Parts: sequence; C-alpha cells; structure tokens
Amino acid sequence: MTKPVVGYIGLGIMGRPTALNLIKAGYTLHVYARRAASLAPLLAEGAQAAASPCELARVADILFVNVSDTPDVEQVLLGEQGVIEAGRAGQVVVDMSTIAPLAARQMAERLAERGIDLLDAPVSGGEAGAIAGTLSIMVGGKASAFERALPLLQVLGKNIVHVGDSGAGQVAKACNQIVVAGTIAAVAEALTFARRSDVDAAKVRDALMGGFAGSKILEVHGKRMLDGDFRPGFKSRLHQKDMHIVLETARQLGLALPISSQTTQLINALLGLGQGEMDSSAMIKVIERMSGD
Amino acid sequence: MTKPVVGYIGLGIMGRPTALNLIKAGYTLHVYARRAASLAPLLAEGAQAAASPCELARVADILFVNVSDTPDVEQVLLGEQGVIEAGRAGQVVVDMSTIAPLAARQMAERLAERGIDLLDAPVSGGEAGAIAGTLSIMVGGKASAFERALPLLQVLGKNIVHVGDSGAGQVAKACNQIVVAGTIAAVAEALTFARRSDVDAAKVRDALMGGFAGSKILEVHGKRMLDGDFRPGFKSRLHQKDMHIVLETARQLGLALPISSQTTQLINALLGLGQGEMDSSAMIKVIERMSGD
Repeated sequence: MTKPVVGYIGLGIMGRPTALNLIKAGYTLHVYARRAASLAPLLAEGAQAAASPCELARVADILFVNVSDTPDVEQVLLGEQGVIEAGRAGQVVVDMSTIAPLAARQMAERLAERGIDLLDAPVSGGEAGAIAGTLSIMVGGKASAFERALPLLQVLGKNIVHVGDSGAGQVAKACNQIVVAGTIAAVAEALTFARRSDVDAAKVRDALMGGFAGSKILEVHGKRMLDGDFRPGFKSRLHQKDMHIVLETARQLGLALPISSQTTQLINALLGLGQGEMDSSAMIKVIERMSGD
Repeated sequence: MTKPVVGYIGLGIMGRPTALNLIKAGYTLHVYARRAASLAPLLAEGAQAAASPCELARVADILFVNVSDTPDVEQVLLGEQGVIEAGRAGQVVVDMSTIAPLAARQMAERLAERGIDLLDAPVSGGEAGAIAGTLSIMVGGKASAFERALPLLQVLGKNIVHVGDSGAGQVAKACNQIVVAGTIAAVAEALTFARRSDVDAAKVRDALMGGFAGSKILEVHGKRMLDGDFRPGFKSRLHQKDMHIVLETARQLGLALPISSQTTQLINALLGLGQGEMDSSAMIKVIERMSGD
C-alpha cells in the first residue's frame, strides 16, 4: 500500500517533533510555517517547503495542522491561500490544535462542502510526549476519516480515542484541561495546608500517592511544587487560553462550572505575577501569596 | 516475642473489620463499644468485652480508637472512665479516627503527662480497605511509638507512612480529603461539560484515563458518576465533616483555600438534596441541577 503524501502546517513546539516523527516513519512531508526559521530542521530531514497552505493542499493526501488558537486554524484552513482554496474531495485534514469545540464543528461543515474531512485531534502529553511519540490524542469527526488517519496518529501517540463526531475531540480536550486545572489547584492547596501546618509536605505526598488522592498530577506536578521547579511542562498562558475556551463554551451551553471558574482565577493571578511562561502548577504560588507567603 | 495485648474502642463500619483482622493475626483483643450490639461479632471471634475505656486501659498494652469525631475521641481518652484514668507509662494509643489536627496534638500532650504515647493514625481506603487490610495509614507521633505500633498497623494497611510529630497524620488526612474533594468536583464538571456538549462522557473518560488527567478518582468515582451509582464508598456527610475540619484548621492558620471552600459548598448542597448517605461523588448531581438538569 502506498503511503499517503503528508502536508504539515505549523512547526512550533508541538508541530516540529510531531512532523519529524512522521518523516522517521517513512512518510513524504510537505511543510508550511509562517516563520522560515521553523522550516529549517524539517527541510534538513528531507521535507519540502510549500509557500502556502493552499499549495500544500495541492500535493498532500492528508494534512496536519498544529497552530496556536482558533483564529490561526481558521486562517490556514479558510483564509486567503488557505487549504480550502485547493482542497479536494477525499482529503483528510487533522487539526491537532486546541480550539473551541463550536469552531471545530463549524470549520468541519465548511470543509465538508468541498468534500474535505476535518478531524479535530487535540493532544495531551506536552512537548515530551510529542518527541517520544506518546501523545494522548482525542479525535472528533467521521469514523471513515478517523480510520484513514489512524496509521499516522499511531506514529504520534499511544492513547488514541475516537470520541465522537466533529468537535468531540475538542470537547474531550476541554474536559482534560478542566480536570488537570482542578487537580493541580487541589494538590496546591493540600501541599500548602501541610506546610503551613508545619508538616513535611513531601511526606504528605508520599502518604497520599497510593490511595484515592493518587493521580498523575500529584505525582508529576506535586513533585514540581515541592521542588519549586516550574519550568514547563505546560505553560500557564496556554492553560489560561484553554480555560477561556472551557468557560466560553460553558457560557454558550448555560452551564455553571464553579470549580473551573475558580481555578481559572488562580491561573489569571499567575499571569498577573508575570508567570505566563511557567508551568501551570506554579498556581501554588498564588495560593501561597494570597495568604501571606 | 510475646504479642502485646490489644484494646479496641469503637466497633463501627471501620472499627469492626479492623479489630477482626487483628484477631485473625493472632492478637488477644479486649474490646469496648457504646452499643452492645457492636460487640457481638467480636465476642464471637474470641474477643473479651470491657465495661469502659478505662477498664481496657488496665489490661491492654496497646489501644486502638476508631470513633466518629473529635468529641468522641476526647470522651474515650480523657472523659469519665476514659483511658487516661487507668493508662500507664509505656502504653501506646493509636487513634484511627479522623479529627482536627490541633485536637490530636492537644490530646497527645495530655496523655504524655501520664507517659502514654498517642499516635494519630487516620486512614484512607474505606470499608473495603478495612476489610481487605489494605488501608492507607497516615501516622503522626513519636518515632519510638510508631515503631511499636507498626507490626499491628501492617496487619491493617499497606501504605503506612510516619508523616511526622503529633497531628501530622491528621494533617495528611486533611490533605487527602482536600485532594479527593477537589478532584471529584473537577471530574464532575468535566463529565457534565461533555454530556451537555452532546459528547459521550464515557468515551471522554476513556480518552482522559492514560494522560495527565488520569487519577484514581477519574477511574473509580468517574465510573460511579457515569453509572449514576452513588452507593458509598465514602458518605458525603462524612466528607462534609472532614472538610469542616479542613476549613476550620485553615481559618486558624489564616490560610485561604478557594477550591476547598468551593468543593465544600457543593458537598453542603448535596446534603441539602438529602444525599448525605450517598457517596461524595454524587457531587455531580449538584453541578447538574445547578444548570437545569
């Protein structure tokens, strides 16, 4: 079976290692990035540069998008010289960016008018997961398109779930960010409670690890809090962006999310402390400062 | 080495299986409970009944306490016919109840005046963990007393951590309840967000399980929420009691806990819905009802 020709748009922190993993797996890649500097490492590995998303769409069977936010995805898919200008029936576009579920649904409808299948496929696992090819990938869109993209997704990630129709991947990612933010905040409160009670917070973490309080967050982010090491990981300004998607979607749904609302305030405060580039587990600084540390 | 004679006070949901496990492990037990009916299953296994905590303290080398709340512990240890009336130097009292850290420290000081060592040793793992002997046990108190109690604690639990001095076990338990409540609330919001977005919440849970959102709570309590099965587990009225300890201690420390404060409101509302005997993961009902379900 001939391998499909792959187009890749967006070669930042997440896009670059992901695109490199596809090259390593033997796929022919055509790449596009707004900044020429981002192209270099891919071209060195044999990828070919395209001048626009539209040009990529002419040569590729399957296109990946990995950019920052909703307007960026809209621009490369539907904007001037966007994918839609040259896209053709049978193409699959895999958008790995984290954007609003509603926007993902609307863009899928627009592309469907041209016969193009859009999968929303946001990821969890960060830069480390992208490099190692161990991302969790949450996919929304048609089952037939998912089946066609699956061999490539399996190069990039481990836990790959077809959650449902268009937008369902973004909904799952939003849920992921709700749980991650809430758990980080709870762990931050617990470790601060321990320290302020003159108890060794590291011992408390040990005691909690095996039981019902145990989580990946307590393990990884709890350790970061104890060490005061807030190198990302996942930057708090991106977590803020994602929580904005959560709360804006909840607003549209008429859904009150008291805990997510509160955790978002902690992330807002963290950016107010000038910590937007730090890991979002730095939320513990807000808890500490609020009560006098 | 002769096994110490064990006294056991409080034979409820947690005390009964714990005491039975000590008998199975070959210890001689003397038991006390306020309700005679609670004694029967222990007497059937060879335990001997005592008329008061004080009488137990006369015969036992090591005493366990497993009652409901701070005033109950104060009553059996320091009250009329309490342990302190007959306690003697060298005795160890292991209090497995969940009470306020400050109260644990103060009672330890009172007992220390008689040469009695009090260990605070609250547990996590619920009735199932008590029966199976797989409790997590968080211990505060003197290292020498911990060493003497350890062989017995190893009969009752698996993850046994000496967290620090008197009160440190209760602090760790409070931290445990902070994290459990916060994580339950975040998972409840995420699953409600998924459902209200017309996405299969079970698939979302699958997608989240392996990544950073993964936790024991997502696994166990997330499943309960999906199934609408809120049989305890851990009763919400007891979680309310424990969050009261958390917030009262935070008040004394001058420590703001915005997430724990908010999760406590959800538990309060759950009791307002008449769900005090249900598992605290029924918090999702509050999230759902709040927005019209």
